[in-house]
Amino acid sequence: MNNFTYYAPTKIIFGKDCIKSLKEELSVYGNNILLAYGGGSIKKSNLYDTIITLLDGFNIFELSNIEPNPRIESVRKGISICKANNINVVLAIGGGSVIDCSKVVAAGYYYDKDAWDLVLNPDLITNALPIVSVLTLAATGSEMNKNAVISNMDENRKKGTSSNCMIPKVSFLDPTYTFTLPKLQTAAGAADIMSHLFENYFQKATDCYVQDTIAEGLLKTVIKYAPIAIEDPTNYSARSNIMWASSLALNGLTAAGKGGSWSCHAIEHELSAYYDITHGVGLAIITIAWMRYILNDATVNKFAKYAENIFDIHDNDKYKQASLGIDATKNFFLSIGLPSKLSEVGIDESKLKLMSKQAYLHGNVRNGYVSLNEEDIYNILLMCK
Amino acid sequence: MNNFTYYAPTKIIFGKDCIKSLKEELSVYGNNILLAYGGGSIKKSNLYDTIITLLDGFNIFELSNIEPNPRIESVRKGISICKANNINVVLAIGGGSVIDCSKVVAAGYYYDKDAWDLVLNPDLITNALPIVSVLTLAATGSEMNKNAVISNMDENRKKGTSSNCMIPKVSFLDPTYTFTLPKLQTAAGAADIMSHLFENYFQKATDCYVQDTIAEGLLKTVIKYAPIAIEDPTNYSARSNIMWASSLALNGLTAAGKGGSWSCHAIEHELSAYYDITHGVGLAIITIAWMRYILNDATVNKFAKYAENIFDIHDNDKYKQASLGIDATKNFFLSIGLPSKLSEVGIDESKLKLMSKQAYLHGNVRNGYVSLNEEDIYNILLMCK
Repeated sequence: MNNFTYYAPTKIIFGKDCIKSLKEELSVYGNNILLAYGGGSIKKSNLYDTIITLLDGFNIFELSNIEPNPRIESVRKGISICKANNINVVLAIGGGSVIDCSKVVAAGYYYDKDAWDLVLNPDLITNALPIVSVLTLAATGSEMNKNAVISNMDENRKKGTSSNCMIPKVSFLDPTYTFTLPKLQTAAGAADIMSHLFENYFQKATDCYVQDTIAEGLLKTVIKYAPIAIEDPTNYSARSNIMWASSLALNGLTAAGKGGSWSCHAIEHELSAYYDITHGVGLAIITIAWMRYILNDATVNKFAKYAENIFDIHDNDKYKQASLGIDATKNFFLSIGLPSKLSEVGIDESKLKLMSKQAYLHGNVRNGYVSLNEEDIYNILLMCK
Repeated sequence: MNNFTYYAPTKIIFGKDCIKSLKEELSVYGNNILLAYGGGSIKKSNLYDTIITLLDGFNIFELSNIEPNPRIESVRKGISICKANNINVVLAIGGGSVIDCSKVVAAGYYYDKDAWDLVLNPDLITNALPIVSVLTLAATGSEMNKNAVISNMDENRKKGTSSNCMIPKVSFLDPTYTFTLPKLQTAAGAADIMSHLFENYFQKATDCYVQDTIAEGLLKTVIKYAPIAIEDPTNYSARSNIMWASSLALNGLTAAGKGGSWSCHAIEHELSAYYDITHGVGLAIITIAWMRYILNDATVNKFAKYAENIFDIHDNDKYKQASLGIDATKNFFLSIGLPSKLSEVGIDESKLKLMSKQAYLHGNVRNGYVSLNEEDIYNILLMCK
């Protein structure tokens, strides 16, 4: 176990109708609120109306139409609104995209130059407006961590940034808000949660038994409940367990003591930057190829352990056990309706070389569980055709 | 899953030599420090000298000789020192007893009347000095939560109190500080951690899959590593996993969404209040009897699940499977050198009736996994003779 710092100070208010205390939680920060949200789904579901009613007496300014894979243009627009209106707190209503965008808006309020600088260099983030989130999609864990991923389509870049001051102060997690999610979004969220767990679980650090058993518990949670949520979208038990698992999967619990950089996310960010595909879908496709590609004498024991602890797979041949575990992962993704090939999401071979180069350039993939070079990434992408 | 609020804002700085950043972390609070510690163990281990050297330039005032089962008298003494010297931050060096005492000292600084009021009525706690802890014993989880348990031997009371403002700001967890612990203290700490997990795991709330798989992971961590730490006290892998498990076992993670009050702690607090025994030792003795006593048609499935998930015990008869799981728990406690009978810790039958009455009076045992009355508690204690 490596030395680590764990810091997850977000107050989580969880459960059906938990939004009732929104006003009480917001009022400590001031009267001027930036209400940030995405497309029309919160209006269709009446969540928008509920929140406007709850915020009676506050001055509300809106940043709407935040994109999936949120764009730097939305960040810039949000910062302008905050600066023009002396915003006291950013209220993000949505999934990871809205919360990520809100984080960089909150940080950009205290930065005089262009906000893209804050994405390229997290050290420039020194302060941020307080952020409160209301989660409507279980996937990224952004509601309980310091990370934000922003896309700049002019430069074909999708890049993460990070700062403790961007950690939400309070996040409201009402599982019923995810009842209306389309099946594919539920499935993509499940793959995203699992990928966060895989990226930390499969690392070089040893003796992280606490972290690994927690990761295994969260993986089993998603594997148990995602199919139920897809089959029976208003199943509270499924939605609540998935929602809480999504926050815990990326709040530092399973990363603490591990170290090492992430491989699948580095590669997927290039797919999204060039093709604007759904993050979780891209991750599901890449993860299986990555697992097969890095299976070797140094990693086989961990993959065999994964197969045993998650899928109860036993075989005298540890390579076979490991491979069966990867097969089971693929079959799980297929069973919840996720694609397994790039061709299914409109990505042909034309940019695989370019994306491999960019992933290697941007992603610190040399420092993952197995060090990857540009050719390795290309080979992994070829396996996903 | 019940609605819940989860709030664990403590910054955890974990690993060998992590204490190096003590000065940096403390300096944000001010220059006047109350250094709180127990007996001489931190002087024997040189930790005291290390900390004094690191705190060069601060004004240090000392509260020493804090007892295991910390007394209200120590709390009062600490508050006097804080008030007389305009203390800015309380630095607790020790295990749960020192940290618990420090918490009520920190809260008492802002309270004009007698500190025992703050134990009897947590609502009177409205503010506290910042608390920073350096952990030397893995057991109570106090380093990452809002709870404190204080004893008043004049009144034969050992009682918990609680407030968000008493949550430590920063806790330093260096597993090497536990290398010198006597075997019995390591074992008692293990039983304490396991009891925290049991108290939340065995509750009425259903569909808490996330919480239960995390609890199972932490239980397996203790069962795997406590025997190693006892056999090989300087095993870093064992000490680090146990230490991190101890914090996570009682920071809200496994309690969130559960509700219900704790039974074994309520009973054990009376044993400690009348006989001043080691908390974890008392818990180990009571837990087994409690498990056997409450095994019934309503609880057997959960106990059978426990037997399967923790000890890989399978039997067609679910009552047998459940009982074998309880046997395995008892055997584990015995294997790490813990007593299994009250007579082994100097407790005879003379006060069992009185302690049962007091536990019922003080402990809210009606609201546990299985509701207990005074007679139930007496029967459980009789099973521990």
